[in-house]
Amino acid sequence: MKNPNPVQTLLCPRSIAIVGASSSVKKVSGRILSTMARGRYSGRIFPVNPRAEELFGLRCYPSLDAIGEPVEHCVIALPADQVPQVLADCRRLGVRSATIIAAGYAELGEEGSRLQAELVDAAGEMTFLGPNSMGFANLVDGLFATSVPTLEHQSDSGDVAIVSQSGGLAYSASWFMAQAGIDLSYLVMSGNAAGVSFADLLEFFFDDAKTRVVVMLIESDAIVAQLVEVVERRGLVKPVVLLKVGRGETGVAMAKSHTGSLAGDYRVARDCAQHAGLVFVDDLDEAVGCTSLLRRGITAANGDDIAALSVSGGNVVLFSDQVDLSGMRFAPLAETTQRRLREVLPEFIAVQNPVDLTTQGYVDPTLQDHTIRILSDDPSVTTIVPIITAAADYRATCQSLAALTPAIGRPLVLLWTGGSYDAESPGILAQAGIPVFRSANLLVRCFRAMRAASVDEAPLRRPARTANAGSNAVTLSEGDSMAFLQRNGVPVARFAAVQSDGVAQAAASLGYPVVLKQDVSETHISDSGGVVLDIRNADELADAAERLRREGASLILSQFRPGLELIASVFVHPVFGPLLMTGSGGIWTEALGDVQFVPLPASAAAFARALKRTTIGAILHEGRRGASGFDAAVALLDRLARCFIDNDDVVQIEMNPVTVSRGEARAVDASVTRVAGTAGREER
Amino acid sequence: MKNPNPVQTLLCPRSIAIVGASSSVKKVSGRILSTMARGRYSGRIFPVNPRAEELFGLRCYPSLDAIGEPVEHCVIALPADQVPQVLADCRRLGVRSATIIAAGYAELGEEGSRLQAELVDAAGEMTFLGPNSMGFANLVDGLFATSVPTLEHQSDSGDVAIVSQSGGLAYSASWFMAQAGIDLSYLVMSGNAAGVSFADLLEFFFDDAKTRVVVMLIESDAIVAQLVEVVERRGLVKPVVLLKVGRGETGVAMAKSHTGSLAGDYRVARDCAQHAGLVFVDDLDEAVGCTSLLRRGITAANGDDIAALSVSGGNVVLFSDQVDLSGMRFAPLAETTQRRLREVLPEFIAVQNPVDLTTQGYVDPTLQDHTIRILSDDPSVTTIVPIITAAADYRATCQSLAALTPAIGRPLVLLWTGGSYDAESPGILAQAGIPVFRSANLLVRCFRAMRAASVDEAPLRRPARTANAGSNAVTLSEGDSMAFLQRNGVPVARFAAVQSDGVAQAAASLGYPVVLKQDVSETHISDSGGVVLDIRNADELADAAERLRREGASLILSQFRPGLELIASVFVHPVFGPLLMTGSGGIWTEALGDVQFVPLPASAAAFARALKRTTIGAILHEGRRGASGFDAAVALLDRLARCFIDNDDVVQIEMNPVTVSRGEARAVDASVTRVAGTAGREER
Repeated sequence: MKNPNPVQTLLCPRSIAIVGASSSVKKVSGRILSTMARGRYSGRIFPVNPRAEELFGLRCYPSLDAIGEPVEHCVIALPADQVPQVLADCRRLGVRSATIIAAGYAELGEEGSRLQAELVDAAGEMTFLGPNSMGFANLVDGLFATSVPTLEHQSDSGDVAIVSQSGGLAYSASWFMAQAGIDLSYLVMSGNAAGVSFADLLEFFFDDAKTRVVVMLIESDAIVAQLVEVVERRGLVKPVVLLKVGRGETGVAMAKSHTGSLAGDYRVARDCAQHAGLVFVDDLDEAVGCTSLLRRGITAANGDDIAALSVSGGNVVLFSDQVDLSGMRFAPLAETTQRRLREVLPEFIAVQNPVDLTTQGYVDPTLQDHTIRILSDDPSVTTIVPIITAAADYRATCQSLAALTPAIGRPLVLLWTGGSYDAESPGILAQAGIPVFRSANLLVRCFRAMRAASVDEAPLRRPARTANAGSNAVTLSEGDSMAFLQRNGVPVARFAAVQSDGVAQAAASLGYPVVLKQDVSETHISDSGGVVLDIRNADELADAAERLRREGASLILSQFRPGLELIASVFVHPVFGPLLMTGSGGIWTEALGDVQFVPLPASAAAFARALKRTTIGAILHEGRRGASGFDAAVALLDRLARCFIDNDDVVQIEMNPVTVSRGEARAVDASVTRVAGTAGREER
Repeated sequence: MKNPNPVQTLLCPRSIAIVGASSSVKKVSGRILSTMARGRYSGRIFPVNPRAEELFGLRCYPSLDAIGEPVEHCVIALPADQVPQVLADCRRLGVRSATIIAAGYAELGEEGSRLQAELVDAAGEMTFLGPNSMGFANLVDGLFATSVPTLEHQSDSGDVAIVSQSGGLAYSASWFMAQAGIDLSYLVMSGNAAGVSFADLLEFFFDDAKTRVVVMLIESDAIVAQLVEVVERRGLVKPVVLLKVGRGETGVAMAKSHTGSLAGDYRVARDCAQHAGLVFVDDLDEAVGCTSLLRRGITAANGDDIAALSVSGGNVVLFSDQVDLSGMRFAPLAETTQRRLREVLPEFIAVQNPVDLTTQGYVDPTLQDHTIRILSDDPSVTTIVPIITAAADYRATCQSLAALTPAIGRPLVLLWTGGSYDAESPGILAQAGIPVFRSANLLVRCFRAMRAASVDEAPLRRPARTANAGSNAVTLSEGDSMAFLQRNGVPVARFAAVQSDGVAQAAASLGYPVVLKQDVSETHISDSGGVVLDIRNADELADAAERLRREGASLILSQFRPGLELIASVFVHPVFGPLLMTGSGGIWTEALGDVQFVPLPASAAAFARALKRTTIGAILHEGRRGASGFDAAVALLDRLARCFIDNDDVVQIEMNPVTVSRGEARAVDASVTRVAGTAGREER
């Protein structure tokens, strides 16, 4: 009998009990109850403790049964060994949801995981938060089932929901949000996250009228994948800011390869999240900064054509430096704008963007206003960034910015590199809805994070796909791999698998120069001397063949095709499913770690966007030093992805390098891994 | 009759006059005087204003002459047109130094520059700050010749001197320093910096007993060069933190080259500063963070073996992520340490570094203390980073950290990702000398900035060297350039300058494969089709020669030498003098912008260090995929530098690429620019 969204009953109960309620604020259970008792919550609160009559002004009950009224949610603040009995009581009494504070479960390893599994069984159809949860707060209804200190300082509901696996990160984030003047609608700490699904939480906040931005602080790749799945299904209903901690969380069992060494990396979660339009940030300061922009409707596009102004030339230059580095851009000013600025600015102030008002801005405080008004009339200016520093009293300046905000059709973002000793200025700005940044570097990092989220197209739904087949998979030899790719329309260099005798003849037919390799299924054979590159004639070929044959392997001969080198792979990630990886290849793959992952299936446009973000892709796209073949490389990626989707017995394909030369992209080295027993299937 | 250091008379005068003193705090001159009057300064203050008897409780004088007592420093708070007359009066009366507030000089262009030159003449032997200066504060003596609002909130002298060209950046920096609990010894705003030299300022602070760290906020490359020169002469007496704003300040007129396009970049100032051991930062937050560490004697070495602990697992993981990305390192724990930790920690807490105390740290508040004490006894742990989050009251925790500080032989650096509502905690930490960071990202960025400063050897003094010879320089053809380098012992690929007829013969003598180029003095001929690579035989050679000859140029033939590609250049920077540049070469030079500059002369160790910081250098050094030749590349750089120093008519040499293959490094493309008329000298 679940609600349409079970989160409703979890976070918005009409009544709540707290079992194990304590009178001591030195205990978690006491702190939670005392905080809850002081809140605005209008539902009934039932403390349960057989040794107390009253706690924090609330009548206390000896047991859940003794309450005698419907209880919708139960906060269980008892040690782990007593939790199953309370859950059984809850189910018997029709309690629909619970928060489990006790630790001692999956975070402690195998025995704890077993206990946690029992807990999930004991909860049955109930929805719950935890175990090892620090609770939650519903600030819309004033319900505090937690003791996070910042929340009590917030008088009303805000518009930002935070969901955190970690209690500590939630404490940190809520503090920094409060410092930035951002009020919360909900704060949910899931702890071990064994109960309520993050997909349900995200959908709840997508549908919640108060919430404008959802902030997710996540440790698990699997939860990131859940969030991506919701966005694929429902679209990006609201901005989502994601901080994923733990940069190599999922070990990826995979045939030895460069793909394998990179696929266990944080980049996979980052790229999958960004592909779905989530704003992926690196630290709490970026999470708060992006939230402060997004809740005011300021998005990546606002960073493209900004205008800035300041009385401090030094701060203008510092900000310009950061803008130049980040890919943000100062808007070119229209002629009308320039003419109007020329009319209001003294002659010695240059009409340009950013505008350095010089100390004249102190002499004539109306200059800032006039300048902002004129800049905001320019059709190409999307956002205006006034920069102020430190003063004893900034109220007049802040009031003037606040008064401008409704009058101009552009958002203001204040870069306040300093502060003031009056107590009111931050409140004036918050009231006016003006986001404030204290660091130029942070401001541009936030715009960069927002820009990296690709919201230009709806992500495609992904097919169910088996994960890595593990020990059941075999890696084809180089020759078989190349043949497989060729049959599937993926461009490869011309090649021939050869026996001891036919080498010279095959080379003559391919045309020199050629490459001779041992035809094995290892990716690092260049390290072990199993490859001879750039063989120019029959004599060199004979030498090379002699040497490689001595090692006992059969051989493969291919065109020598120097060029710019890419890596291109497809594989099934255990959490994120089918992915394509591409980036700088050959010796640069590991040195730069410069790869992008794209969830499959994806459009050619998505491959092009990913490739452009890598160094080698940017070189090809910009055609540096006559480089060409960007489109050919994208077409190759598209063919590779199709080949993978069409052959569901294929576990992994790595091509490294693909060389791009004279407008053509072809794999010169490839390794295909398939489920054992199917490898020869289509050859029959 | 200058003092040993003229800054003494500027910043520490025994008496001070302020000409143009106003009664209105709405005017800069009034704000300065009112601030000065409230300060602790024990010298005489003489306001000068013919229309006032008394200002802010001080007797006011109608003119400098009317004072009738010795005046050591004069703050000139009058418009630009009256400044020369006041300076003349000052000199007549023996005033030794001045601060010039008026703007309207070199910042406005040519006419202003002329006025500024006149000002310098008018000042004669006097030392002065400005023009366009916001003044200075000497907090050791309590003298405020400025109205920066934060300074009055500082009760006593601090230990950090800030020198800023920009007034606005000084306002910002002093605010953020105050927020971080860092008190200043001096704050100097030089404005247009036409008077006192920054070399003198740096030496003054090197010798000042109160100052522990010097922070320089600089816009001009020339001033960075002055600071570097002082360190070369005197050594790095104290830590210097440098924020250089304006990332492309010096245009570098240079023969068209990759070197030229990169040498106008901020990287030159960065690398020269770091080579001298200055800590080069990117924003004010890093400047404040590095200062907070360095003033406590915490340096780059402290980042190598840190230990961390927290009750918040999420924050531990977040910090670990940042540490992994930055090249900082968690110390491996000694066996004794592990055994002792096992004794105090509950069984379910893993003994590892960083230590996640879990919520057990709340249950038993002594755990943090015990853990820190044990970690601090570990010989390999250099620094301990406790991580705390948000609480209503953190006094007990902060007091406990403060009490530990004198007891343990290791610095604590607190990562406080949050805050508290008690007012005392920050003060307790500041009193105990514990630096506090609110962001893991900022903490690791600060250690990275400190590590990039190379203090492992005294920089070499640099020879005087003429700057670029500009129009008087000629660029040699490829063949002449290669011949010049070869004569000077710089390894180059085998080559031959050829006439129309001798091509085939020369190729046979060099051995195929070969490269044929037009023998011209352009660096981008590969863009224009003037190069044919990888010619395999006489037929291909004939085709190539036919094609290139049609273009009308003479030809140069060389070995085709594929390999890993470096760029290596030497040139005279107009500000920083002789420099060597190296980094990733060929197509990667512009795509990665991955170059390092080394001031010449320098040791081979300095070249090795610079090369290792580039991607290609790291590949060579780590021997990825069998790459070798790092030592050969360093030897080539050393030969190139010697060649440049030995030939003082050489203006620039660029070799791009140098290829490294089979342990050998050789230039395959080179361009030498020399002063006209000397090019053929040694050939004679």
